[in-house]
Parts: sequence; structure tokens; C-alpha cells
Amino acid sequence: MNTETEIQPAARGPGDHEVRDQIVAAATEHFSHYGYEKTTVSDLARAIGFSKAYIYKFFASKQSIGEAICHTCLRGIELQIEAAIASTDSAPEQLRRMFRVAVEASVALFNQDRKLYEIAVAAASEGWPTAVAYEARVRGHLQKILERGRAAGDFERKTPLDEAAQAIYLVMRPYLNPLLLRQSLQYSEDAPVQLSSLILRSLSP
Amino acid sequence: MNTETEIQPAARGPGDHEVRDQIVAAATEHFSHYGYEKTTVSDLARAIGFSKAYIYKFFASKQSIGEAICHTCLRGIELQIEAAIASTDSAPEQLRRMFRVAVEASVALFNQDRKLYEIAVAAASEGWPTAVAYEARVRGHLQKILERGRAAGDFERKTPLDEAAQAIYLVMRPYLNPLLLRQSLQYSEDAPVQLSSLILRSLSP
Repeated sequence: MNTETEIQPAARGPGDHEVRDQIVAAATEHFSHYGYEKTTVSDLARAIGFSKAYIYKFFASKQSIGEAICHTCLRGIELQIEAAIASTDSAPEQLRRMFRVAVEASVALFNQDRKLYEIAVAAASEGWPTAVAYEARVRGHLQKILERGRAAGDFERKTPLDEAAQAIYLVMRPYLNPLLLRQSLQYSEDAPVQLSSLILRSLSP
Repeated sequence: MNTETEIQPAARGPGDHEVRDQIVAAATEHFSHYGYEKTTVSDLARAIGFSKAYIYKFFASKQSIGEAICHTCLRGIELQIEAAIASTDSAPEQLRRMFRVAVEASVALFNQDRKLYEIAVAAASEGWPTAVAYEARVRGHLQKILERGRAAGDFERKTPLDEAAQAIYLVMRPYLNPLLLRQSLQYSEDAPVQLSSLILRSLSP
């Protein structure tokens, strides 16, 4: 499968975890210059100075490396979402802040590095596990906010909880999903405000 | 600008309007086989049997031909929207039907001919006048439904009308805009129902 000579790590080299991090860091750097789509594992190996076989010891495919990078980016957005939710006790305000922060963080990622954003686009269009899990966690955050708001009497309780959470997720989706966000940038400033207000009107008891 | 010999229409040939229609029909046929993006006006002229110069007498550019095709498609969707609205007097029901029919017609257009759909994608991504005018008319329909529902006491009246209409438009946009619809097909069955319900909850007096 692979005929290149493996470059073995130094005898007392870094542990597996460190090597993985090293490959991910070098790959992030490389992808941000040359793009994710156009780069092969061979290109990457050459650029990093590792053999292809050595990289394959740590990652099953280019996508696995992409997933690791994507996971870091999405985790970064999620931490901001969690901080926004923790910053207030009011469920309606949590919803507003969550929406605003999620969009701001996603737009920042887009503006910061278009070439790295390719990875997020691939993750979303090919349904990578990291992207699917992220969507599920965002829906989970929404559902918890709804439960809290219902318990506090801020939100109506007639609509089935999962139906309400799913509909709100669909309203936010164009600004969270990287494929859709690219086509929604012109609304990314105003939409979170306008749509949060619409959502909150729909939740009024 | 153009060195090809012009083929003049026959002395008692069809009027300008007929020639335009003839070019549009032939172009539609050609684009649906070979795609809009890859076809040049020269290709088109060759395929139709007219000179490039003759086509340029009727259309300023390939985009102008694309706009004429796009206009026909969007007008078709709009007629279905108008029929859906006219089919009931209840504003909430008009909203539900408008959403459902608009999505069904857009998905049908997508499934019917992926190559022709390229034209809709170009129209949306490049902001062609036909696409911009269509969006404005959809917003206009929404606003009229809101006015009707407010007058009948079906909808709340506190939210400024244009704000409410714009927010509802943003909720529908992923299923109307061809660029977004391509990425939202997995939701195109359920979303109109779930989102209409959310919108109607947001409008309750």
C-alpha cells in the first residue's frame, strides 16, 4: 500500500498524543496556505517531513486529519456558545445570546481563513461525524434552554419540546451550517436579532 | 466585436417577439443538455443555427438569455404561490399553503432538470434583476397575508409589519433561494410544516 521509507520518531521522541498534535498543527498550517481540497496526504507528508506511512499510523485518511482540525474549530465555537448561555439566567436572553454568539463565531471563522473554512464546508457537505455531533449538541443546548424557560414560565408549554427545538434549530441553521452561512453572510448581522425576536414571539406563553 | 456573417431572418419572417421566444426555447433546450455555465453564446449560436451577431440583436449577453429563462421559471412558481393564496380566505392557512407550495415548486424545478437549475443558481448568486424582483414579490405576498391576518384579528399587531414580514421571509429563504435549497433538500419535506407552525405561533395575537 505504501512504499515510502518510514521516518521513525526519535528513540525518546514525543508520545503518540504529541505526534498527533504535531501533525494536526502542521496540517492546519499547510491547509491554510494550499487549501484542504487540493492537498493530498503525500503533499502533506512532504511538507511536514514525515513519511506518508508514518502519518497513516496516526490518521486513517486525510479526512481524519480534517476531522481533528474541524473538531478544534467547532469546539471553539461551542465554548463561546456555552459561555453565552452561562452569562445569564433568563432563558429568552440565553436564546438571543446563543444565536448571536454562534453566528459571530461562525462568521469570524469564515473571515479569518477561507482556505481552512473549506474543511468546515467538506465536513458539512459530507456529513462528517464531528459536524453531525456538533449539530446534535447545538440542538441539545436549544432543548435545555427551552426546558429552563418552560419551567420558569417564560415559554409556552403546549408545543412538544422536540418539535419546538427542531423548528428553532431550522431557523438558526442557515447561519450555523458552513455551506449555508456562505450564502447568508449579507444577513448575518441583522438575522440573529430579527429571528431571535420571531422565535421568542413564537415561544410566548 | 463580432466578425461572423449575420444570418438575416427571412423577409417576411417572424416578429421580434417570436424570434426572442425562438432563441429562448432553443437556448433552454441547449442549456438543459450541456449546462448553462459551460455554454458560450458562440456554442449556442452554432447549435441554434443563428449567427452570434443575430443573437446579440435580441439579447445583450448570455445572462440576458438566462434571465429570460429564469423569469419564466420563477413566474411559474409565483403563479402557483398566487393560486395557493387565492385558494383560502384564512390568512394563517394562506401562509401555510404559500410556504408548502413555494417549496414544492422549487424542489420540483430542482429535480426536473439539474442543468437548468444552474441558471437559477447563477441568478441567485449573482443577484440577477429577475431573482431580486422575485424575492421582493415573495416578500410582498407575505406582507399582504400579514395585513389580511391582522385585519381579521388572526395575527398580533404589535410587531412592525415590515419587521415581521422580513423575519418570516428569512425563515423561508433556505427553501426558496436555489443556492440554499440545494443544501436544505433533506429538510424540504418537514421544514415547511414545522416552520409554518413556528411562524404562526409567533403571529398569535
